[in-house]
Amino acid sequence: MSPGADSIPDPAVRRLSLYLRQLEALRTTDRRTISSRELGESLNLTDAQVRKDLAYFGQFGQPGIGYQVDELVGQLRRILGTDRVWNVALVGLGNLGRALAAYRGFLHKGFQVVAVFDIDPSKTGLPIAGLESIRVQHIDDLKKTAPAKWIRLAVLTVPAESAQSVADLCIEAGIGGILNFAPVSLNVPAHVAVRSVDLAVQLEQLAFRVMASPPRP
Amino acid sequence: MSPGADSIPDPAVRRLSLYLRQLEALRTTDRRTISSRELGESLNLTDAQVRKDLAYFGQFGQPGIGYQVDELVGQLRRILGTDRVWNVALVGLGNLGRALAAYRGFLHKGFQVVAVFDIDPSKTGLPIAGLESIRVQHIDDLKKTAPAKWIRLAVLTVPAESAQSVADLCIEAGIGGILNFAPVSLNVPAHVAVRSVDLAVQLEQLAFRVMASPPRP
Repeated sequence: MSPGADSIPDPAVRRLSLYLRQLEALRTTDRRTISSRELGESLNLTDAQVRKDLAYFGQFGQPGIGYQVDELVGQLRRILGTDRVWNVALVGLGNLGRALAAYRGFLHKGFQVVAVFDIDPSKTGLPIAGLESIRVQHIDDLKKTAPAKWIRLAVLTVPAESAQSVADLCIEAGIGGILNFAPVSLNVPAHVAVRSVDLAVQLEQLAFRVMASPPRP
Repeated sequence: MSPGADSIPDPAVRRLSLYLRQLEALRTTDRRTISSRELGESLNLTDAQVRKDLAYFGQFGQPGIGYQVDELVGQLRRILGTDRVWNVALVGLGNLGRALAAYRGFLHKGFQVVAVFDIDPSKTGLPIAGLESIRVQHIDDLKKTAPAKWIRLAVLTVPAESAQSVADLCIEAGIGGILNFAPVSLNVPAHVAVRSVDLAVQLEQLAFRVMASPPRP
């Protein structure tokens, strides 16, 4: 990764993921090359935007030919860090946590849940559906387990009231990236990254738009 | 809802959800009033931003006193449409679909899964963990069931390859809002709203940021 990665704006990094998805899809159709214009159009972006985003990370593609699909997939994975498997901790074994623990979609993209934690001592030691080799651990183990299992990412599926204190524990344990499903915004130091996914908020936004648009027969 | 709701920018609507979450949390602490400055600060926004967002929908709050917490909660719910229960269809009963079907977090916010569809005929008629009163239906039933059960929102947990065709079926069935978990962007007509949640993309973004920041001891 380039040394200035810290200064690259979030929207540019988000678009890299979109480019990667498009290119991965293209690759399954045996497509060999793509121009910045085509790649942009498929995502409603300009070719200048595509070239600008990629230019943060080096020189890709050739004038008149475009990008080699295979090559750019490899380069984007390396840039995004998904050319390796990331060990992930899942914290909070309620309904959503249980669901995500069993969700296979992460592994295909390079993310593996290797430890699951809950605050409820009665869950400690229990097996987890879909994750054969691990058992639920008490959250007090996080600080010991995270460095031991090379865990740098955590998925938080805890109630809103405990999200901040659990996030603090994660950060103490050396976790640098938190995917937060609790409907609350977390305060974290600058070296820690947080993404929040509030599913109810997403539905709320849709509801608002549906109300603004009359039903169709 | 005000007549011009269609023209209100997405970020403003998204902030309404954030305001609502903060106010709901405040209400549990028996707080009666809050100023636009305090509400803004709790979300790293300016008071001018808070007032501007709310001004799209009318005149709230009183100079020198601020907003009545209870009243603004009610008004925001009415604006966002979550003062009622929305019937939701879940389409695609893989791991993630099963997980979300059982997830209780939606109902608390006014969203109720009332029908579940899958393309696999062998799943038709099966019960769904966490949803006692309903059975899996074949996706061909969507067009009949959606209007019959007043379903205007759908959660899509189908593979990327089938997401567009399933979205088309939803739209034919009169669904106006789609929460899409498939890692693909959907083409929909202007009267249909889509929100996409790609969990692997979120983790990828975190991975990128973690790589940019050295591990802490």
